[in-house]
Amino acid sequence: MTEDVSRRDFVKMAGVAVGGLAIGAVGGYSLMPPKETIIEKEVEVPQEVPEHPWQYAKLDVEKVKERAYNAYFVGGCSYGAFEGIVGELQEKVGHPYTSIPTKISVYGKGGTVGFGTLCGALNGASMAMNLVSNDLSMVTEVVGEYTETGYPTWKPAVTKKTDADLPTSVSGSPLCHVSVTKWCEASGFESGSDERKERCGRLTGEVAGRAAEILNAMADGTFAAAFVNPESVTGCNGCHGDDGAIANVHAKSECLQCHGDPHTD
Amino acid sequence: MTEDVSRRDFVKMAGVAVGGLAIGAVGGYSLMPPKETIIEKEVEVPQEVPEHPWQYAKLDVEKVKERAYNAYFVGGCSYGAFEGIVGELQEKVGHPYTSIPTKISVYGKGGTVGFGTLCGALNGASMAMNLVSNDLSMVTEVVGEYTETGYPTWKPAVTKKTDADLPTSVSGSPLCHVSVTKWCEASGFESGSDERKERCGRLTGEVAGRAAEILNAMADGTFAAAFVNPESVTGCNGCHGDDGAIANVHAKSECLQCHGDPHTD
Repeated sequence: MTEDVSRRDFVKMAGVAVGGLAIGAVGGYSLMPPKETIIEKEVEVPQEVPEHPWQYAKLDVEKVKERAYNAYFVGGCSYGAFEGIVGELQEKVGHPYTSIPTKISVYGKGGTVGFGTLCGALNGASMAMNLVSNDLSMVTEVVGEYTETGYPTWKPAVTKKTDADLPTSVSGSPLCHVSVTKWCEASGFESGSDERKERCGRLTGEVAGRAAEILNAMADGTFAAAFVNPESVTGCNGCHGDDGAIANVHAKSECLQCHGDPHTD
Repeated sequence: MTEDVSRRDFVKMAGVAVGGLAIGAVGGYSLMPPKETIIEKEVEVPQEVPEHPWQYAKLDVEKVKERAYNAYFVGGCSYGAFEGIVGELQEKVGHPYTSIPTKISVYGKGGTVGFGTLCGALNGASMAMNLVSNDLSMVTEVVGEYTETGYPTWKPAVTKKTDADLPTSVSGSPLCHVSVTKWCEASGFESGSDERKERCGRLTGEVAGRAAEILNAMADGTFAAAFVNPESVTGCNGCHGDDGAIANVHAKSECLQCHGDPHTD
């Protein structure tokens, strides 16, 4: 911003015009000062938007979690995670982040308009990470780690639907449907219950917070990817993956969750 | 932001103030009344970024398809679809679309960094639709229709990997992995083959084009949602959905594709 403006080389009128006026008065016999009319004309100029990826500023992880949790109850999980991170950047950095309407991410809720595919919290967090970096290993880390993490363990300062500690479950999958159904089975709560909504709100906070933690580590130069695909995936992909003998799978999600093991069943 | 900059009140001098000085000097020994000096100030104000959703402008569907197809080979399926639509809006409308770096969507490739979840073309197209509208029934339409459509049937003017007509397949699912594997099985081509990449590039063009078609219809006021969930989904959700007796599923993707029928197996 600062650079931007100085490059445009604006000049402040003030003293300069007055100086001109003073010379005029001294040079003449007339004591009447020359009349000045100032016409101000507003000219709208496009604000320069920097090249992608945008400069990241380290965020307060707790603030991101709280913001994401609260935004979940406004626009759902995907908006929650995206607004949690990008909203904080809008507040902390301002331009160019303020030029992104965070509502662009609402569609991702319920695994994209309720289809139960990619967990919306992962979608929103991934989009935010991709805004500030081309290094997609961070996205792999957050998505991969999600599949192995028991959610929810974090609780916001002020809860929306219930203040109770909630049971946790590990999804084994980045899919919304698998994640929600496994939690319903583990907790005994129904998918339409307040507890399930509270669970998804807290999960949204945790996922956004984890993404911010990883972005902070990247900013510090200390990020190191730790996630590795489980053996079931590397095992199946040995034959079915892009380089295998059968080569009909271009994916790395847990296989047996949907397929059982067709070689032994 | 806008307030910030206008408060700084920058002014462009132009040559006008210098003109004032010259008149003052000429007036030195004369009795001529001082002339009026008109100072034109150009106050530059940054163009405001409008509220979400942004104003859509109807697009040339063929251009969107071609742009999305070509972008697929630059940044993958999700970027392809998003750049196909938003890139065209950047070219046609300019501001505020030019403030969105379309590379924000690269992460969605291969069902999000290769995890095989939500088809990236659907992710990018959905994100673009959500940028210009809050009406998510359009997203449901594109995602739902995708599950029932045989891809690819469209061919770009200049192909990248092969110019051959390619076999088609219906995925029955919005998941990248299911979509790709079903196509590999239907076509006999491997998941790492040039033909599979060409297939995904063409599909990206078609999905982005279909989203643009629907957006154009919305702009004309003629969009009417047609997709309905298949009976297998509504049947299972009768018990398993949010309002059912078991209520452990919050999703609407095809059930039997992964589950078989656990009640009869």
